[in-house]
Amino acid sequence: MLIVVALGGNALLERGQPMEAENQRKNVAKTAKALGELARDYQIVICHGNGPQVGLLALQNDAYKKVTPYPLDVLGAESQGMIGYMIQQELGNQLPNKSVVTLLTQVVVDQDDPAFGDPSKPIGPVYSKEEAEKLSRERGWKIAPDGKYFRRVVPSPQPQDIVELPTIRSLLAQGAITICGGGGGIPVIRKRDNTLEGIEAVIDKDNTASLIAEKLNADMLLILTDVSTVCENFGKPNERKIKKISPKVLAEMSFARGSMGPKITASSRFVRHTHEKAAIGNLFEVLDMLRGKAGTMITEEIDGIEYY
Amino acid sequence: MLIVVALGGNALLERGQPMEAENQRKNVAKTAKALGELARDYQIVICHGNGPQVGLLALQNDAYKKVTPYPLDVLGAESQGMIGYMIQQELGNQLPNKSVVTLLTQVVVDQDDPAFGDPSKPIGPVYSKEEAEKLSRERGWKIAPDGKYFRRVVPSPQPQDIVELPTIRSLLAQGAITICGGGGGIPVIRKRDNTLEGIEAVIDKDNTASLIAEKLNADMLLILTDVSTVCENFGKPNERKIKKISPKVLAEMSFARGSMGPKITASSRFVRHTHEKAAIGNLFEVLDMLRGKAGTMITEEIDGIEYY
Repeated sequence: MLIVVALGGNALLERGQPMEAENQRKNVAKTAKALGELARDYQIVICHGNGPQVGLLALQNDAYKKVTPYPLDVLGAESQGMIGYMIQQELGNQLPNKSVVTLLTQVVVDQDDPAFGDPSKPIGPVYSKEEAEKLSRERGWKIAPDGKYFRRVVPSPQPQDIVELPTIRSLLAQGAITICGGGGGIPVIRKRDNTLEGIEAVIDKDNTASLIAEKLNADMLLILTDVSTVCENFGKPNERKIKKISPKVLAEMSFARGSMGPKITASSRFVRHTHEKAAIGNLFEVLDMLRGKAGTMITEEIDGIEYY
Repeated sequence: MLIVVALGGNALLERGQPMEAENQRKNVAKTAKALGELARDYQIVICHGNGPQVGLLALQNDAYKKVTPYPLDVLGAESQGMIGYMIQQELGNQLPNKSVVTLLTQVVVDQDDPAFGDPSKPIGPVYSKEEAEKLSRERGWKIAPDGKYFRRVVPSPQPQDIVELPTIRSLLAQGAITICGGGGGIPVIRKRDNTLEGIEAVIDKDNTASLIAEKLNADMLLILTDVSTVCENFGKPNERKIKKISPKVLAEMSFARGSMGPKITASSRFVRHTHEKAAIGNLFEVLDMLRGKAGTMITEEIDGIEYY
C-alpha cells in the first residue's frame, strides 16, 4: 500500500517558534519518529512544506546587501536541500534498514495561471507602507496589506506536472522512502521550445502532494498538520469534529482560504479523481488516522458526514 | 562507458565574479552545453563544487541577525539544492530525451580526521588581505591566501563513505544522469549506535568524486576546472604543461594546497585503486581531453611524463 504524506511546514517549525536550526532539528526528529512507524507498515512518499524556511532564506538574502537576492525558484530549491536533508537523516536514523532519499523536484506551472495576475501568498517580513512601496519600485515586488503592515506577496499557481515523476517511480520500485516535491516543488514553466525555466512563485505543497499521489496511483493521501480533524462550523459554538465525509458534501462547505481551504481542495481532488481515500489530521495521530480513529477521512464510501 | 565528472565551483561562478544568481545561471548554461556533448556519448555522474555558493549562504546567514547561522552541513545541503537545480534544469534543457536528476547526498567523514584541527578548504568570495584579516578578527574565521586574494577556510576531512550509494547505482541503472555528492556531499559522522549526524565541514568535491567513481567502478574520473592542464613548475620560467603522467611520478611532485593539490591527490588515488584513467583540464575542452588532445591524463599506461 502506497501512501503519499503531505507534511505541514509546522511539523518542522512550530507556529511562532524561533527559526533556529536546533528547533527545526528537534521537530524533525519527532516527526521522523511518527513517520517511521508509518513507514514500517506502508510504502511512503513525503512532500513537505517550506513556508517558514523559504521565508528565512528570503530574509537572509535580503540582509546580505552585496548580492541581489536570489529568485524564488532557487530559494525553493535551497529549501528542498535544507529540509530534505534533515528529514532524510532523521528518518534514516529511525529506519536503519531502509533507504530514505531526497530527490530535487521541479513542478511545472502554467505561465497563464490566473495566480500570476493575482499574487496572494505573503512571504518574508512585514514592512511599513513607505518601505514596502520603495521595495516594490526597486525590485518590482507586488505588495499587499497584512494587518497594519505590508508584505511582499507572490503567486501560488496550480501544479500541472511533476518533471521528475519517472524517477520518483523508479525510486519507489527500489523500495526507497522518497522525499520529493518539497515546498510544493521548484516552480518552473515549460516554454514553447519545450525547455524549462524557473519562475517566481511558491506552489502549495498540499496541491503538489495531491498531484503526485494521483500520478503515482497512491492508495491514500495523508495531509498531516497540527490540528486533529476538519471541523464543521470551526470556532463557533456549534463546531463539530468530522470523522468521515464525502468529497461532494465537503465541496458544499466553506473553509478558511489561507489554512484549511487548500488542504480540503487538495484532498477532495485526489479522492474525486482516483476514488481512493484521503485523510487530514495530526501528524502524531497518524496510525490512528489509518484506523479511522483520528483525523478526518474524505471518502466516497459514504454519502454524507459522520461526526466524532 | 561511465565517467564521473568533478565540476569546479568556478565552473559555476568564475573566480572573483560577483555572486549574482544571473551570473551563475549563465555559467551553468555554458557548462551544461559542454557536459551535454559529453552525455550524448557517455553515461555521466556529476559531482559539483560549492565553495563560492556555500560561502555566500554563510554570509547571508551571518547578515541576518535574528536567527543563529545554520551549521555548515545544513548549508551544504542548501547548496546541493541551489546548484543541483540549476545544473539539472540547464542540462535537462540540452538533453530533452534524458532524465537528469539531483540526489541529496550525505558523505561520512571521520570525527577524528586531522582536518578538523587544520582548516584548509576555501569557501565564499575572495577578499583583499586587509578585508580578510578584518573578517578573521571579527568573526573568528580562519583565512588563507587563494591566488592573489584571500578567502575563509574551513575543515575539509576525507570522505569515507557515500550514504546514498545504492540509490546512485539504481539511478544509473535507469539511465539517469545523476548529480550527486554536490559540494563534496553533506558532511556527516556515523555514531556508535550507527546513526548519522551532521558535522561542520566542507568536503573536497574532487575527493568525493574520486570515491564515488571508485565505488561505481567508473571507467574514468574527469576533474574539470578553469585551467587547461597540470603544469610542472607552475608559474615559474621553466613551467611545462603535462600531457600524460603516471600517478607514481605525480606523487613525487608538489602542488598548491587548496587548489591543484586536492585534484592531483583525488585523481591519483582513483587511478592507483582502479587502474583506470583520470584527467584534469578545462571544462570547455572536455571532448578533446577524452581524445588526449587537451588536459592532463593520469594513467598507469606510461611510467614517466609526457609534455605538450
